Amino acid sequence: MRRALALAARGRYRTSPNPMVGAVLLRDGVRVGEGFHRRVGGPHAEIEALAAAGPEAARGATLFVTLEPCAHHGRTPPCTEAIVAAGIARVVVAHRDPDPRVRGAGLARLRAAGIEIEEGRLAAEAVRLNLRYLVPKLLGRPLVTLKWAASLDGKIATATGESQWITSQAARRWALALREEHDAVLVGSGTALADDPLLDRRLGLAGAPGWRVILDRRLRLRPEARIFTGGGPVLLYTETAAGPAWEPLVARGARIVRLATVTPETVLDDLAERGIGSVLVEGGGETLAAFAEAGLCDRVTGALAPLLIGGRNAPGPLGGRGRLRLDEALRVEGLRWRRHGVDLVFEGVREGCLPALCASVGAS
Amino acid sequence: MRRALALAARGRYRTSPNPMVGAVLLRDGVRVGEGFHRRVGGPHAEIEALAAAGPEAARGATLFVTLEPCAHHGRTPPCTEAIVAAGIARVVVAHRDPDPRVRGAGLARLRAAGIEIEEGRLAAEAVRLNLRYLVPKLLGRPLVTLKWAASLDGKIATATGESQWITSQAARRWALALREEHDAVLVGSGTALADDPLLDRRLGLAGAPGWRVILDRRLRLRPEARIFTGGGPVLLYTETAAGPAWEPLVARGARIVRLATVTPETVLDDLAERGIGSVLVEGGGETLAAFAEAGLCDRVTGALAPLLIGGRNAPGPLGGRGRLRLDEALRVEGLRWRRHGVDLVFEGVREGCLPALCASVGAS
Repeated sequence: MRRALALAARGRYRTSPNPMVGAVLLRDGVRVGEGFHRRVGGPHAEIEALAAAGPEAARGATLFVTLEPCAHHGRTPPCTEAIVAAGIARVVVAHRDPDPRVRGAGLARLRAAGIEIEEGRLAAEAVRLNLRYLVPKLLGRPLVTLKWAASLDGKIATATGESQWITSQAARRWALALREEHDAVLVGSGTALADDPLLDRRLGLAGAPGWRVILDRRLRLRPEARIFTGGGPVLLYTETAAGPAWEPLVARGARIVRLATVTPETVLDDLAERGIGSVLVEGGGETLAAFAEAGLCDRVTGALAPLLIGGRNAPGPLGGRGRLRLDEALRVEGLRWRRHGVDLVFEGVREGCLPALCASVGAS
Repeated sequence: MRRALALAARGRYRTSPNPMVGAVLLRDGVRVGEGFHRRVGGPHAEIEALAAAGPEAARGATLFVTLEPCAHHGRTPPCTEAIVAAGIARVVVAHRDPDPRVRGAGLARLRAAGIEIEEGRLAAEAVRLNLRYLVPKLLGRPLVTLKWAASLDGKIATATGESQWITSQAARRWALALREEHDAVLVGSGTALADDPLLDRRLGLAGAPGWRVILDRRLRLRPEARIFTGGGPVLLYTETAAGPAWEPLVARGARIVRLATVTPETVLDDLAERGIGSVLVEGGGETLAAFAEAGLCDRVTGALAPLLIGGRNAPGPLGGRGRLRLDEALRVEGLRWRRHGVDLVFEGVREGCLPALCASVGAS
């Protein structure tokens, strides 16, 4: 299953809104075939693995697959039928598929065909890998990843606002790759005005542009902003009523959405309605804090550069009011660390997030 | 030499003001003896290694020792004479001893006896290990280690000042051990008043109490403070003239030192005069920042807990004015990371610190 998860991860940039799925066929302890879901619309992992093994090797084999096989006609025919037809003896899955068209029906179909089933193998890891598939399906809102780059002493800029670049080129490449994992990138208007970022996908991993979202309550963004020079649709959320201020921005291609109040909740609601399954919140500190304080975040990730900036007035990654008591602080679980150049990149999951999702996919 | 360094480190808590030294004897590729300097006043590492090997095995062997052997009568007779007498064929050292009584004389004596010498093996690592010995000798001031405990988002307390405890028990044990590595622990009066800390050595690693230092310009510390309930001498640095305010503190055992201005420079000067070779600066943010902004720090270490606290007004580890431009930020080199419970502990050295010291001990 560990191998199947590693294979699944290779679909990271191209499968949204589908899950990443990996599959390995084992016969008499020998790996006879494997595959993964490469891109949305392409064959499912199980089908790839069966094809790689060929009909002879597959007969009587055990299939390890990171997600419950589908039992419905979607973009592709149901995998359950192919598995049954191939004469697979046993199927081991990490967890069930919460898609209402599957949700246990895949396993039931296989069981009915006399195939032995095991569920829950490495379920927490599979859930973590597929947060951006599971969170929208189970929580009805996009996956929210909070991301920042800070100095070792927790500053995202100097007291005078200089922030480019705190981290090394290696960590900046990591940050660019992270964008391509998410359907949308989101910043507050303060950051949009101060840094004038493009927020675009520029590594070519995803193969298509993503959404770029700015929370701009007072509609301060200027039509000259670099974000309008290309790189996917721009969504502005504002509290400012439609009027002359909208026109130059609309003329530049902005899609302006007016909300009574622009909050993490209202914005995520609208993003969900657009079918956006994952959002990378890149800053600034007030925007990140708004999501953190609302508890609307699933993953937290950041790069720490070996620098000391200091300064009472230099901003940290999370502004706002903050949690006033330590026992109210947001806890991060399953923290992982990795070097990128001289910087350290961490990634963790909000406390409670994984157990709740695991329980929903029959893997508690 | 790597083995010799690991042995040297075992003297971490008991050798001050001496260096940590480790020695390994190799004959025909076989380790025939090893030793380390266990405690100040005890035998040197070379003597331990020679004794462990015995006269027969030592003859013709190669001695790996992390520091140049001494050539003078100190608390113990010169190691060079023992090495020559033992018939050692070759001596490999990490770096020279900057002690004015040695400074190349040890190697010269060995060379004169026909022993082959190699210098500079793993010198940077040996220098890093012995910063608390080398900094006072070469820079004329104590080694300064800045230390903090922060949340993942770089807060050392909530906006209302709650800071106990951000880190786990495992990380707090690490922090207590760190105290016993340093001759003195130092905090600002703000921290002394807010946390009322003991600042004592309580793990029994060092075997004797250490200095506890408070920077207290306006002499705000109260005689009821817990720090006076035991655990080694208390030094208060103040700008407040001797007078009635001193008396209750003196009665509690405080040693009050009046300085025209209490700054990192003036305080380190006075500590150096007292023979204090290393200071652990534990906070708060303004005190840490004062040392960082003055460039008077050698090591930087901290624990990061998997928590998000947030808050524009919640303090970070380094307050003060901070560095206003990124290219002025203090750079940390050789960063090492280790888990302590759920927390992550980092440790690095101020940029330029190691190369300068290495050059001074003939290992550039």
